[in-house]
Amino acid sequence: MRDNPETRAAAVAAGDRRALARAITLVESRRAADRQAADRLLSALPQPDPPALRLGLSGTPGVGKSTFIEALGLKLADAGHKVAVLAVDPSSARTGGSILGDKTRMERLARHPRAFIRPSPAAGELGGVARRTREAIRLVEAAGHDIVLVETVGVGQSETLVSEMTDVFVLLLAPAGGDELQGVKRGIMEIADLILVNRADGAMQAQASATRADYASALRLMRPRPGDPEGFPAALCVSATTGTGLDAAWQAVADLARARSDSGALAERRAAQDLHWFRQEFERMLRDHVHANPALAPVAARLEAQVGAGQRSPTAAAAELLRAVTGD
Amino acid sequence: MRDNPETRAAAVAAGDRRALARAITLVESRRAADRQAADRLLSALPQPDPPALRLGLSGTPGVGKSTFIEALGLKLADAGHKVAVLAVDPSSARTGGSILGDKTRMERLARHPRAFIRPSPAAGELGGVARRTREAIRLVEAAGHDIVLVETVGVGQSETLVSEMTDVFVLLLAPAGGDELQGVKRGIMEIADLILVNRADGAMQAQASATRADYASALRLMRPRPGDPEGFPAALCVSATTGTGLDAAWQAVADLARARSDSGALAERRAAQDLHWFRQEFERMLRDHVHANPALAPVAARLEAQVGAGQRSPTAAAAELLRAVTGD
Repeated sequence: MRDNPETRAAAVAAGDRRALARAITLVESRRAADRQAADRLLSALPQPDPPALRLGLSGTPGVGKSTFIEALGLKLADAGHKVAVLAVDPSSARTGGSILGDKTRMERLARHPRAFIRPSPAAGELGGVARRTREAIRLVEAAGHDIVLVETVGVGQSETLVSEMTDVFVLLLAPAGGDELQGVKRGIMEIADLILVNRADGAMQAQASATRADYASALRLMRPRPGDPEGFPAALCVSATTGTGLDAAWQAVADLARARSDSGALAERRAAQDLHWFRQEFERMLRDHVHANPALAPVAARLEAQVGAGQRSPTAAAAELLRAVTGD
Repeated sequence: MRDNPETRAAAVAAGDRRALARAITLVESRRAADRQAADRLLSALPQPDPPALRLGLSGTPGVGKSTFIEALGLKLADAGHKVAVLAVDPSSARTGGSILGDKTRMERLARHPRAFIRPSPAAGELGGVARRTREAIRLVEAAGHDIVLVETVGVGQSETLVSEMTDVFVLLLAPAGGDELQGVKRGIMEIADLILVNRADGAMQAQASATRADYASALRLMRPRPGDPEGFPAALCVSATTGTGLDAAWQAVADLARARSDSGALAERRAAQDLHWFRQEFERMLRDHVHANPALAPVAARLEAQVGAGQRSPTAAAAELLRAVTGD
């Protein structure tokens, strides 16, 4: 890790897989020196032109998400795309587990020369996991991956976070009885661009079709996103194991992405995402600044002790820290 | 709204219901002058001693949450408690709807002299809704409510937020087939202290019992929270319509709260919550400061324009804004 940022950025951009893996490890590091190096590396990265397609994908455990991602990833890689698969799992820190962490998952895709798979960073709160994933997206794109799949499980706010860092958001669901429709969270229905009902094969075929129709009806009740083509958000059937419906599903994703790109909606969406990221980065840097500054750190420590002991209201303590930081 | 903060705080503490309702409206306001008045009012509030019990409650739409809260609330109010019911619904801004917003909900509880019900603030992002709800908790507690129920729907991160502002978190679920168990999000299972399977009556009785047993098995796989009594997290059956199991459910909540209070875990939990709130308040005040400061506002505006146009990386822009704010 002794190379300078420009050398590292050049190695990543040249498609050096080891350099890419190391760069992601660097942005995932919590050491202050690594953080500085990571910020400089990120600033030195080239912007991909044309931009890559960022696809968010969520699904409850057991729905067949890995099988689906592997089938879709192989199809795209075989067609000449460079495909990266990243993951956001905010529960990995707590449970010790990690989606994509199991080495036996997606074995065939992992061995494909045009695919790159990276498990969720195992450390820290959701904001930190989200930041490191956004930075990993920039890195894999600089390395020439033109399709980036960001996978998440339906825990807490992770779906919202993933939809905030991707261009199109897909929800993978299992066939279900009609009564269960209400169990799908309204907020998730609202951010999904495409619902795929998996396991549309064999004995489940009919139930999958019925479930798809139920979701399609529910989606018609949602307001369409301004500027999206007729028919979106959409619901389709797929079978990750037989491959049925996979082409149509990808076509829907590509059609939506192209329409959003042509209308300028994609550029707007990315601008809004970058602004959001800017604000989050500012807050993170300010926190680091307060804790590294010899004049501010003791003030922050005292206020935290007082708040923790119930001697000071959080609001009053926040006002005092603000005065210390701004010098007012 | 022309009274000074001390007069207002005294009226709230004296149990004046109109003063309480107005104070909550004040903390929900987004006007800068109201914000200042709200901060001063909050600082002037007395701390309740002994502390109130803060109970978080989540459940998917249709599970019978209103019926359950009304039944539990009436039982507690009739037993002499002062009960407040607040709500967190992050989707209310987007959908125009609002849980607790329907005036016909919980009519009997709303008319009870020892109950106070307040719908979710309809405006803004999740962080803002959370802040206003935390402030409403402080207000109803200062007004003498010794039990505060905070209701939420399962959208995005709202359950996590509510668990972060309450002492005990309860998940209300409907009877279901065994296959659906995986549909309950792992993250929610992890924050639930008590799972209640509602509708344990009539034809649903047997299915509710089976579902309860399934959840109890699943809960046994979770690590218990350090210091919690044997048997928690727990799963019980209730019927909000017949009242069956309501006493036992409340007993479980009260037992857990008392054990946590006796062991000091409750004080620790609240200290951690206050610290989290302190950090969030600081960030909110700093944002307000930057946008109100004549030297900083133009810098922030220029950087936001550059980031939005893709001319500047979010990370580099954040570093420049930090230098401007701290004067380094």
